[in-house]
Amino acid sequence: MTAADLSDQAAEALVRLREAAPRVHCITNTVSQPITANGLLALGAVPSLTTDPAEVADFTVRADALAINLGTLDNDRRSAIETALEIAVEEQRPFVLDPVFIDVSAQRCDYARGLLDREPDVIRLNGPEFSALSGEEKPNPQELALQWLTTIAVTGKTDRVTDGSASATLSNGHPLMARVTAMGCLASAVVAAFLPVSPSPFIATISGLTVMGVAGELAARQAGGPGTFAVQFIDALAGLTPAMIRSQSQFADDDE
Amino acid sequence: MTAADLSDQAAEALVRLREAAPRVHCITNTVSQPITANGLLALGAVPSLTTDPAEVADFTVRADALAINLGTLDNDRRSAIETALEIAVEEQRPFVLDPVFIDVSAQRCDYARGLLDREPDVIRLNGPEFSALSGEEKPNPQELALQWLTTIAVTGKTDRVTDGSASATLSNGHPLMARVTAMGCLASAVVAAFLPVSPSPFIATISGLTVMGVAGELAARQAGGPGTFAVQFIDALAGLTPAMIRSQSQFADDDE
Amino acid sequence: MTAADLSDQAAEALVRLREAAPRVHCITNTVSQPITANGLLALGAVPSLTTDPAEVADFTVRADALAINLGTLDNDRRSAIETALEIAVEEQRPFVLDPVFIDVSAQRCDYARGLLDREPDVIRLNGPEFSALSGEEKPNPQELALQWLTTIAVTGKTDRVTDGSASATLSNGHPLMARVTAMGCLASAVVAAFLPVSPSPFIATISGLTVMGVAGELAARQAGGPGTFAVQFIDALAGLTPAMIRSQSQFADDDE
Repeated sequence: MTAADLSDQAAEALVRLREAAPRVHCITNTVSQPITANGLLALGAVPSLTTDPAEVADFTVRADALAINLGTLDNDRRSAIETALEIAVEEQRPFVLDPVFIDVSAQRCDYARGLLDREPDVIRLNGPEFSALSGEEKPNPQELALQWLTTIAVTGKTDRVTDGSASATLSNGHPLMARVTAMGCLASAVVAAFLPVSPSPFIATISGLTVMGVAGELAARQAGGPGTFAVQFIDALAGLTPAMIRSQSQFADDDE
Repeated sequence: MTAADLSDQAAEALVRLREAAPRVHCITNTVSQPITANGLLALGAVPSLTTDPAEVADFTVRADALAINLGTLDNDRRSAIETALEIAVEEQRPFVLDPVFIDVSAQRCDYARGLLDREPDVIRLNGPEFSALSGEEKPNPQELALQWLTTIAVTGKTDRVTDGSASATLSNGHPLMARVTAMGCLASAVVAAFLPVSPSPFIATISGLTVMGVAGELAARQAGGPGTFAVQFIDALAGLTPAMIRSQSQFADDDE
Repeated sequence: MTAADLSDQAAEALVRLREAAPRVHCITNTVSQPITANGLLALGAVPSLTTDPAEVADFTVRADALAINLGTLDNDRRSAIETALEIAVEEQRPFVLDPVFIDVSAQRCDYARGLLDREPDVIRLNGPEFSALSGEEKPNPQELALQWLTTIAVTGKTDRVTDGSASATLSNGHPLMARVTAMGCLASAVVAAFLPVSPSPFIATISGLTVMGVAGELAARQAGGPGTFAVQFIDALAGLTPAMIRSQSQFADDDE
């Protein structure tokens, strides 16, 4: 696909997301829960966030997609993730894996590797986390996407997305995004919200990350620092239009 | 009471709340903890939020009211609620029950029904949650308030409040309130803050919900989206005056 | 040291903090996690926040300082604190103790007293908490700092800091700081961030509290209430310069 095609796909996915209002169940860290819930609501999705092993099944069954984030992992979350992913496989609910900080904790890294067997539709992570997950210093996303049967998004100053066949590089976003906690966690939840309304995990991922990047640029224009930026970012998610996506998204099409 | 009487009652309750600065212990979900604490502080109440079973007794004894919210329920919270409600009954601390999402989880719904035996002073919930709690498709609030010995507030585009004898309908508020996570949880905590300074749970409930609705209208005037709205809402709670309540509250007196 | 010396020390510590970007691991309550993470990021430090006993060792080893906060204490947090402090002692990581609300819970107070044996570099607390920790109605900070081998900061309308030999009183800050939840928790984390870049815990403490107080004054100028204040406060932490510290810090040098 050309850059213009990718931009069109993201714009159209946003329209479908607003119409469908998909339910996204997020098992995520306590730090990111408020911004994740508010970001999804602003975008037009419907979040739920329980992490109780006894209740997570009921929430997973009614969700349209799952976001599994390993920040502030604890025994309840591990058990809830186990239950949620069993149901996700049975009921064919797509899910995003966000293996936060696995480069810091060897134990958490082992846990994340175990989740690869559940075949996440998307894995969103930064460079050091990708190295830790793959066990390689310079892992090859295309090869690993094919091996793991997933779409891999390595985010940072630019975001690289690939499912092994299609690939794209996104250069939207703003440095203030790195000064607000849990923006990466929110990005994963936003990608999850696009999964049920997209023709493929690859399109869901480029749509979610484009929405995040363009919203970041819009918010930065109104911001006096990371505090006002975070607030304006939520407004931008709510106010974002398909036309803004078309005019401001910046893709370098890796396939060309 | 006429609509003007209700409006006067709410305005006077706000004055008393600001003078008394009641302590409200909230056992609530992790998502809502920051906005609940900040909302209560802005209004003039003093929040505490521990959910540890071993410590909750100390916090409950010194509190003037309790807010029990079933979001992100887990074993610690269940155990803390048990202990807190025993003390609430012994020490005559009023409490509000907010049975979040019991329409989604049958297990959580059973748990909420068990809490009816503790005779909550107020139950605040939305329409689907009320149907789940009552087990009826179109439950009758008046009848159930008498049966459960409580005040029931079914909130939504309009809020309906009844204790079985007195009833009122409130139509304040703004659609942006539904785009911010945990506004319902905050509403329950605000109603709890009014309990110790009100002549009846009914008056506490209409006061708390009026304060929320009028603050929502004030905040919406300054807001560019749900992010700025949430911030302006906290400012509005702090800046709200009895005169604003009198001039802007919109009651339909169900008794007339 | 004179007031001008203290002001210089705080200004220079801010420069060093921004260069070093110290990693601060915070075991803190769920309410304060978002503002603590965002405050540290805005200031220029790198927060992590896991409270899982199984993972906390990995995070503590790589951290430059620790902030231990007793709000919403639970079994996981107690166990995580135990592990983190063992490593902190072994690996010589400095730490701040923030014994939130120990004046309310006798059990939590006993727990805090037990932590004195681990010799926190700094204890930051308010007046009632200091009375509870010391078991004295009017405790003497100088004497107790020497006895506990620590720096004590008793914060409130003015902040008093002493390590037993050097002492200072700070009068920066703004009343709106008391209307935002977890500002005290953030203050403790900010002091922790200054520990690895300061010549002594005393200098780290006066630097951290001065930064908080001056940021509070700057934020109040832009604020319409506690909601906008909290947002502007994060912007102020990010925008603060050494020159602002020099021109606005208000010390009364207790040693003169």
